[in-house]
Amino acid sequence: MGTGVARKISESTVRRLSLYLRFLEEFEARGIRTLSSEELARRGNTTAAQVRKDFSLFGSFGKRGLGYSVSELSDTLRGLLGLDRSWRVALVGAGRIGSALFAYHDFRSRGFRIVTVLDSDPAKIGQSWNDVAIRDEADLETVLRQEKVDIVILAVPVDAAQRMADRVIRSGVRAVLNFAPTQLHVPAGVALRDVNMSMELEALSFALVDDLEGTG
Amino acid sequence: MGTGVARKISESTVRRLSLYLRFLEEFEARGIRTLSSEELARRGNTTAAQVRKDFSLFGSFGKRGLGYSVSELSDTLRGLLGLDRSWRVALVGAGRIGSALFAYHDFRSRGFRIVTVLDSDPAKIGQSWNDVAIRDEADLETVLRQEKVDIVILAVPVDAAQRMADRVIRSGVRAVLNFAPTQLHVPAGVALRDVNMSMELEALSFALVDDLEGTG
Repeated sequence: MGTGVARKISESTVRRLSLYLRFLEEFEARGIRTLSSEELARRGNTTAAQVRKDFSLFGSFGKRGLGYSVSELSDTLRGLLGLDRSWRVALVGAGRIGSALFAYHDFRSRGFRIVTVLDSDPAKIGQSWNDVAIRDEADLETVLRQEKVDIVILAVPVDAAQRMADRVIRSGVRAVLNFAPTQLHVPAGVALRDVNMSMELEALSFALVDDLEGTG
Repeated sequence: MGTGVARKISESTVRRLSLYLRFLEEFEARGIRTLSSEELARRGNTTAAQVRKDFSLFGSFGKRGLGYSVSELSDTLRGLLGLDRSWRVALVGAGRIGSALFAYHDFRSRGFRIVTVLDSDPAKIGQSWNDVAIRDEADLETVLRQEKVDIVILAVPVDAAQRMADRVIRSGVRAVLNFAPTQLHVPAGVALRDVNMSMELEALSFALVDDLEGTG
């Protein structure tokens, strides 16, 4: 486990840092070189105080009256988020979700390279997606080590997810992005994010129900 | 906007309620009829106090010494989350992510029915996915009204996302699930969830960087 200052930054702060970086890139694309916390807050539907508070976590970069340098601040955020390097990603599960993720442009442009794909379906094993051969899930441990994988994306059926996660972690990988609709157990020191698309829809139906009942 | 009690429940609480429901369904499938807050907490990597606090938001259902009735509690959670009814969903964008979402079993089993798909690609318009015809995005407003759509899933390119969201909301839809990697602006009273897959990976690379630097 890390002992750096960053360790104390909450998940929601990390999320905001990712968003700030996107906004800064938008501003940069429009030729804007400096920015106040107010302008950044407006873009992000937040307050200037929140922006300054977030940035003060890793040292303040704003110059009073001049604002933040868009390029300096972007670089700092990229460094913090680990986007100034390339990450080797394994995709486990070559079904529909896996294939959509493989084709997802935004990953590569952010430095996340899917270097290997694994599946258990004999019809898929040996096929190639672009230049990436689909390997046998049975060889997971070997492949993850050979390919020096940093991050595993799990796009496997829900009943296989925990078992697969256990194997991934035993192979020494310490970061897992899970798309199976379940909550995985991982030991301390392993970073896990779940993307649960049904739960996102449930948050919306919850809001709609409340809306109906509140105005009924 | 709703004025019900539920309105005050935070996003992270709603997320936990969704998770509790999944755990309860797991226990139910194993034939377990009653459950203590401790057992539920253990499954969810949380504390019994948190479980009891969450449930007290909508009235307490546990009987001292007997625990919660799994089926009663599941029903209550389903009602709260709007899962005791069927929701009409439109999918905008019939690309790779759209097609993976269309095939996603978990949506239908939770009552989210994709009743219409829209795209701007002439090669796709008129095709059918199962029995659902792909309609022309140009007719979005008409289609959303005809199909009495409750929730829109946006799986369109990032530059089209805000424009499409504006049209969706002008058509009277009040719930949007966005897969484009950007933060959309929506007016008050519209429920929005963003699924940003790159940002999930960034949360992992952040953790890995911190880990490297913390132990370096």
